[in-house]
Amino acid sequence: MKNIGIGIVGIGNIGSYLYKEINSKKNEIYKNLGFKINIVGVSAKNFKKKRSIKLNKKLFFKNPIDLAKDDKINILFELIGMSDGISKKVVETALRNKKHVITANKALISKHGELLSKVAEKNNVNLEFEASVGGGIPVLRTIKDGLATNKISKVVGILNGTSNYILTEMEKTKKSFNDVLAKSQKLGLAEANPKFDLDGSDVLSKVKILSSLAFKKKISNNSCLKNGIENIDLKDIEMANNLNLRIKLLGITEIINNKLFERVHPSLVPKDNYIANINGAMNAVILNGSPVGESVLQGEGAGPGPTSSALMSDLLSILRGNIKYPFGIPNNKRFKIHSYNSDFYENSLYLRLEVRDQPGVLSDITKNLAKFKISIERLIQIPDKKNKKATIVIITHKCFEKNSLSCVKSLNKNKSILKNPVLIRLF
Amino acid sequence: MKNIGIGIVGIGNIGSYLYKEINSKKNEIYKNLGFKINIVGVSAKNFKKKRSIKLNKKLFFKNPIDLAKDDKINILFELIGMSDGISKKVVETALRNKKHVITANKALISKHGELLSKVAEKNNVNLEFEASVGGGIPVLRTIKDGLATNKISKVVGILNGTSNYILTEMEKTKKSFNDVLAKSQKLGLAEANPKFDLDGSDVLSKVKILSSLAFKKKISNNSCLKNGIENIDLKDIEMANNLNLRIKLLGITEIINNKLFERVHPSLVPKDNYIANINGAMNAVILNGSPVGESVLQGEGAGPGPTSSALMSDLLSILRGNIKYPFGIPNNKRFKIHSYNSDFYENSLYLRLEVRDQPGVLSDITKNLAKFKISIERLIQIPDKKNKKATIVIITHKCFEKNSLSCVKSLNKNKSILKNPVLIRLF
Repeated sequence: MKNIGIGIVGIGNIGSYLYKEINSKKNEIYKNLGFKINIVGVSAKNFKKKRSIKLNKKLFFKNPIDLAKDDKINILFELIGMSDGISKKVVETALRNKKHVITANKALISKHGELLSKVAEKNNVNLEFEASVGGGIPVLRTIKDGLATNKISKVVGILNGTSNYILTEMEKTKKSFNDVLAKSQKLGLAEANPKFDLDGSDVLSKVKILSSLAFKKKISNNSCLKNGIENIDLKDIEMANNLNLRIKLLGITEIINNKLFERVHPSLVPKDNYIANINGAMNAVILNGSPVGESVLQGEGAGPGPTSSALMSDLLSILRGNIKYPFGIPNNKRFKIHSYNSDFYENSLYLRLEVRDQPGVLSDITKNLAKFKISIERLIQIPDKKNKKATIVIITHKCFEKNSLSCVKSLNKNKSILKNPVLIRLF
Repeated sequence: MKNIGIGIVGIGNIGSYLYKEINSKKNEIYKNLGFKINIVGVSAKNFKKKRSIKLNKKLFFKNPIDLAKDDKINILFELIGMSDGISKKVVETALRNKKHVITANKALISKHGELLSKVAEKNNVNLEFEASVGGGIPVLRTIKDGLATNKISKVVGILNGTSNYILTEMEKTKKSFNDVLAKSQKLGLAEANPKFDLDGSDVLSKVKILSSLAFKKKISNNSCLKNGIENIDLKDIEMANNLNLRIKLLGITEIINNKLFERVHPSLVPKDNYIANINGAMNAVILNGSPVGESVLQGEGAGPGPTSSALMSDLLSILRGNIKYPFGIPNNKRFKIHSYNSDFYENSLYLRLEVRDQPGVLSDITKNLAKFKISIERLIQIPDKKNKKATIVIITHKCFEKNSLSCVKSLNKNKSILKNPVLIRLF
């Protein structure tokens, strides 16, 4: 196959950028590798939508499924997004019709990656998804190829540019969560509906993909510890700052006693730690492997440019004839793994409580903590005399997740505590 | 080829580790990828040398050239080191006999990479050298694959673990260069003859390999600006510290006006810059590409574990059947590039002068700087009354390399200046 027909489904910001990128690089690819690549079909919900590119009407397929089956197509890019519905249909159809598929769709891969990789392997075509995790950072390729024979034990990542941007901006501008969110929507750094970016879902999808590649296991569909940044208040950012810490939304996956422990939550990271200094829309991934040791990859986590870089690397990988295992090794060699019981997750906690300024409150709270075997390392009380309130921040010694959740639940019943306690785990 | 015969030439620390690594991973590789790999021949200067592994006498080849030609061998690891002599002969012989070659030898690749890649391509075998740059960091693979279609404009790296370790230790322990060097030799972090690590040669070899991959050009054999860390004094480290800077030995390559500018020299980096915080024996590479933006890779730069990780990734890449261009694209598609005239390299300078404490010295020095159009941003004079000497540290505004070198030459003639001036460029 020296003449390569390319189809693109989904011509939004990313699709438009990719369209230009392919056209601007195709001569170089022909010159260097001898492959003639050509975009021979595109499909989008709305042909007439305003775009930065002019779509050729002759290339347009109204029904993306027709494009996925079309004889002229060898490689299909799926850039619709969404875990189910038409995205899944398009990808599955293309694979069954022996087309290579390249996608940026983490929701799809984290949910249906097992099925789709089986279909790809059966039909001897590639299913590539470098762009689904870490934007322009070639982290999946690094795990599959660059660190191929390492035994990876842990992966920690800042994997959502929107969340990281919001946390960074809140610290920098001292503006509220809502103000900063509005600004990032204006700048195109947060979507109109940013739910999945902010509640940790997007990170969790990426963590699941990373786990299955790093540990060579089936994608887990266990329910996981998942907290987002929606409840982080400027107060917490400033308090963290005073404690020489910084709040980061982390995705973490590791093997503990042969069990898989995946979680997503904000963490308080010491400011002199590398990961505390990944700011703005940047992403970073830290891999611990043997024999390689600790490796860190950092780069732009989102946006049309970085995403296209990853999509094009997948295209080149296919052209170069790399072996066709979407997860590095055959589907039937990757096994299920049980999940670790998060009750035994041990962390120091940051607790922020907004309380009525009245006698006995602090005593009630400390008693409550003691009941759940949570001991206090540090306690800061900031009075708000005018409103007869106070903010209490507690840093605890390490305690079990089970106890900390029960404790928060129990604190919630205390009528002197005016809002849901904010709990952030220390890194 | 499902049965793969492996040969290893050079069984030192790295070779021994690799030997164990291959044997411990071969079942997994068979299970996952279906390839039966076996070490079927080894060669070393001295069979009886004390090693962490027991070599099977039956596998031993006295003459490595015989091993390079042997019918049982499909893939040969060259781990001797050195740019010429037997290393080159072994690699070339193996390639001409249609064996894939994997090497960690940066001196060889940076000097003979063009010839050897041509031979490899002609014989349709791989020549892989991931381990030659950045230890365990898969930086070459990232450039060739992960960032394949990006236009890379600049690469900056901390590429020599020995130098970086020495600079870090000097700052931490406040010990002299020689004391720290002795300690690192004891710890195995510096070789008995550390010349090439300390004088920038090792970094320059790596820079040349990075350039040719990043910019898709022939390896340059231009003479380059190359300074090592041999003249860095504890005084400079401490002075940098006071200025909130840190000294790092950097390898830098970039394209300026279609010309290649490669250089290696110590740089004064602001402490809050990412690169100032790569400490100890760590390596890091910062790549600027379009459309991906800035990417950073960090990891352990040397030692048997990280090096074996890179060597094994090359092995897997060959097993997976990746395309056989050692530098990503065919040799005849990579062209020569002219080199940038370093006279026009612009930097702020740090100059340290040890002078006699007598009237008129400072005036002479400042006059001298003015003569070469070098203007002073900051000047610190520290008296050493007892010895009737003084240390003068000058931070200049940006000036041209040509002028700064001429100025230092001219200062050297000043008899009130007691030692060769120390010049460190600001990052």
